Amino acid sequence: MKKIVRFGVSLDQDLLQTFDGLIASQKYTNRSEALRDLIRDSLVGQQWHDNKETVGVVSFVYDHHVRDLTRKLTHIQHDFQGHIMAGMHVHLDHDNCLEVLVVKGKGVEIKKVADALVSVKGVKHGKLTMTTSGKGLT
Amino acid sequence: MKKIVRFGVSLDQDLLQTFDGLIASQKYTNRSEALRDLIRDSLVGQQWHDNKETVGVVSFVYDHHVRDLTRKLTHIQHDFQGHIMAGMHVHLDHDNCLEVLVVKGKGVEIKKVADALVSVKGVKHGKLTMTTSGKGLT
Amino acid sequence: MKKIVRFGVSLDQDLLQTFDGLIASQKYTNRSEALRDLIRDSLVGQQWHDNKETVGVVSFVYDHHVRDLTRKLTHIQHDFQGHIMAGMHVHLDHDNCLEVLVVKGKGVEIKKVADALVSVKGVKHGKLTMTTSGKGLT
Amino acid sequence: MKKIVRFGVSLDQDLLQTFDGLIASQKYTNRSEALRDLIRDSLVGQQWHDNKETVGVVSFVYDHHVRDLTRKLTHIQHDFQGHIMAGMHVHLDHDNCLEVLVVKGKGVEIKKVADALVSVKGVKHGKLTMTTSGKGLT
Repeated sequence: MKKIVRFGVSLDQDLLQTFDGLIASQKYTNRSEALRDLIRDSLVGQQWHDNKETVGVVSFVYDHHVRDLTRKLTHIQHDFQGHIMAGMHVHLDHDNCLEVLVVKGKGVEIKKVADALVSVKGVKHGKLTMTTSGKGLT
Repeated sequence: MKKIVRFGVSLDQDLLQTFDGLIASQKYTNRSEALRDLIRDSLVGQQWHDNKETVGVVSFVYDHHVRDLTRKLTHIQHDFQGHIMAGMHVHLDHDNCLEVLVVKGKGVEIKKVADALVSVKGVKHGKLTMTTSGKGLT
Repeated sequence: MKKIVRFGVSLDQDLLQTFDGLIASQKYTNRSEALRDLIRDSLVGQQWHDNKETVGVVSFVYDHHVRDLTRKLTHIQHDFQGHIMAGMHVHLDHDNCLEVLVVKGKGVEIKKVADALVSVKGVKHGKLTMTTSGKGLT
Repeated sequence: MKKIVRFGVSLDQDLLQTFDGLIASQKYTNRSEALRDLIRDSLVGQQWHDNKETVGVVSFVYDHHVRDLTRKLTHIQHDFQGHIMAGMHVHLDHDNCLEVLVVKGKGVEIKKVADALVSVKGVKHGKLTMTTSGKGLT
């Protein structure tokens, strides 16, 4: 059961105005929601810093014509299958594929999965996005 | 037709040794591949900086029990359907969902899609990952 | 004349508790101040994104024994002297120096100063820190 | 005594051309130097990740008219004086000051100094820049 509390923040009027302009340009309709996002983002950063159980997204782009590459990438994913929750494959053009994996585990474990995939020869670009399991972030 | 060239890099021996240690821990089996990844990553950063046609991954976590939220998020995605190439939905637990979208377009357009989704009330955490269409990155 | 306004933020109680824990560990004694810092940091990012007049800090580490290096770095600083407000030089050890420059100007101009210095052969590590002139951030 | 080694990197010709264009725009006159910078930057990131002895730059902007603020900031610096190697103070305008400190120690200790200063009420913007002592980076 969620319990919402309300608290006051004091801020210089001009600063508030500038901030309201920024968040409007970012499509926020609500100042509280913009602040909640800033708060939650700082907490997600802390979860990763503390190596808590969390969720990451590993994205990598590669040319599926490279010999043996698809097999290698599949093989690595099997090694980590306990951590990989789901995957998506997108055909960017005739040659290039983007694969996106949702990985759960402790921060350092998720980094291991990302390192193993991004370092394979033929992977053109790879990134780990640190997000969250959503637990404790209401 | 790809044409591979080979060039020499001069480096202090101790520095090379330390770098070899780092990339081994990152699972690289090949020094050239580690360097190519550093090179490509700097080029991807430049593509985004120059607002070129590229590809991004938008990840966001939300509680699907929040009233009307799924409908709103779907609605926004339809507004940008020319840019969204594919999407994946993962049930993180009973309440939390992670949605991952692959978005193509100019850098600023992709940012707009991300802003529109991340700013919706009820989205707990959202991130834009800047990756690449793979074109010109061989 | 500063005018302080006060507004309310509604937040889930558990989330607020977690945030209060985080900011206590970061030595904040006051929740409003932690939120103001999140707000101001998002505005500083926007100033740089919009290429407004701002202030940056360029830090670089080098070995002052490298032949001709100090002369080159000084020379570059003279080329940009209209932008460089101040500099500090620290002897890290027998060989290594850290130089820190405060640079004002539009975002792209400050980046140019940083690029010119960081790219010099013999500079071991260089970073541009995007901060602010403080104007409009009260 | 530094010993320079030379090794070969194989790279697609088009990719090399694009990279050469990027580094020329960043004022590099030498491809090896651009690659050494990418290598050293990845090693500096690792030093911070491993909590090794290193050097950081803490920058913060504040209004020196805020009552008691200068005294508080000085007081904190004295608490950490074993870590603070040097400081510089710049008058940005009539109201705003930028202070830049060079801090040495383990990564977590340097973060503590930064947290303590940035969190003080009246500090408008603060950033920690992770750089290096230069040791082992030749």
